[in-house]
Amino acid sequence: MKKNIKVNASILIIGNEILSGRTKDTNTSTLASWLNSIGVKVVEVRVVPDEEEIIINTLNQLRKKYDYVFTTGGIGPTHDDITAQSVSKAFGKKYEIHKEAFKILEAYYKPGEFNEGRQKMVKMPHDAKLILNPTSGAPGFNIENVFCLPGVPSILKSMLGGLKNRIIGGSPILSYTISLRTVESEIADSLSRVQETNKDVEIGSYPFFHAGKLGVSIVIRSENQSKIDSCNSQILEFVNQKKIEIVER
Amino acid sequence: MKKNIKVNASILIIGNEILSGRTKDTNTSTLASWLNSIGVKVVEVRVVPDEEEIIINTLNQLRKKYDYVFTTGGIGPTHDDITAQSVSKAFGKKYEIHKEAFKILEAYYKPGEFNEGRQKMVKMPHDAKLILNPTSGAPGFNIENVFCLPGVPSILKSMLGGLKNRIIGGSPILSYTISLRTVESEIADSLSRVQETNKDVEIGSYPFFHAGKLGVSIVIRSENQSKIDSCNSQILEFVNQKKIEIVER
Repeated sequence: MKKNIKVNASILIIGNEILSGRTKDTNTSTLASWLNSIGVKVVEVRVVPDEEEIIINTLNQLRKKYDYVFTTGGIGPTHDDITAQSVSKAFGKKYEIHKEAFKILEAYYKPGEFNEGRQKMVKMPHDAKLILNPTSGAPGFNIENVFCLPGVPSILKSMLGGLKNRIIGGSPILSYTISLRTVESEIADSLSRVQETNKDVEIGSYPFFHAGKLGVSIVIRSENQSKIDSCNSQILEFVNQKKIEIVER
Repeated sequence: MKKNIKVNASILIIGNEILSGRTKDTNTSTLASWLNSIGVKVVEVRVVPDEEEIIINTLNQLRKKYDYVFTTGGIGPTHDDITAQSVSKAFGKKYEIHKEAFKILEAYYKPGEFNEGRQKMVKMPHDAKLILNPTSGAPGFNIENVFCLPGVPSILKSMLGGLKNRIIGGSPILSYTISLRTVESEIADSLSRVQETNKDVEIGSYPFFHAGKLGVSIVIRSENQSKIDSCNSQILEFVNQKKIEIVER
């Protein structure tokens, strides 16, 4: 882990089911939380349909712009799973059977069950490196700074552990939350002043409604714990002055 | 409602809390489902941080590319709420107090409570039209093809009703789901053939895991019910042939 180096990433969600509203995306939250913990900050997310040209163009933009790109979805066996072939085209690489992936799935299925549909799942860009899948066999893959993961949340989650040593993060992004029994407009000015004097710290304000009561969570994020502590004491100062109840910290 | 006209939209989610993984976005699903029902298809979603330049650039791309753009988040009273000023700049319009919005919030709060923080919520681009908020007073706004809504899901939901007559949709996008007790690779080839002969229908295949059993949901989407019916009978043909159990339809 390198100190004070900022490493960023984007997430490319591939799937009509998110755009139609049928499925709520939870992979962004899973990936972003995990990436934060290893010092990678997600700075953009895009959701695109299962359309080759759009996937290729979007991926080619993102992979040039960010240190890492994580794609989710579209690596299964059906006709609407076109991530691997699209990524191959985006990189100008041959879309071909990956020998190691073939062996993994051949061993995973019962004899005779590794049929044509399933064999599609071992085709990927030439020279891709596998991302092992402890849940359901079919691996994801990585090529250069692009990591292709499945769309099913539980399977995606199970594959992150195996990625840890392949992503080089910067300083982990630390976060501190203080929840207040107040409304945003009561603290907006004071909080603004804290942000003004701490420009390199990210301070977010999020209203919540819990157990019949309104409140505001203030989230302070930085790679530097002492900067978080300093913001926090400035916040506590106005909180005490205004006699605002602290719900949780 | 116009027949056979395709109307599209994109969603721009503004908020560090989504990118950090702290909050799971549910507004995309709410908006997309509602838009589908009035004949508007969401074809792209972007999530960006609370940074003015990024919001301006992204919005200017999206509003030129799509019939409608819906933004969520960043219209509250705190320093990290910068949607209204960013949208004003994107359109080259003055960021100013909206008189009607001022009156609404002045009446909404108790005398003396409509403070400076809250007055920020009535500043928006010159000539913006209000989107009324039956939940918490502070309105959203609309300028040209861009509609700016809040990030809090329950408040966003409550504001959609008032938008209905301001969005001109095409034919509603119809959807039919058939859930099978099978795995994707068993039906991949047959389903491919159905998609091949029905290129203008969107057929998605989604594995699920429910009550300890695996299954696949096939989702057929089109503006044309007879095309959905025709796909469905082609699917039922191979389902019967393969003796696959239908879980739900």
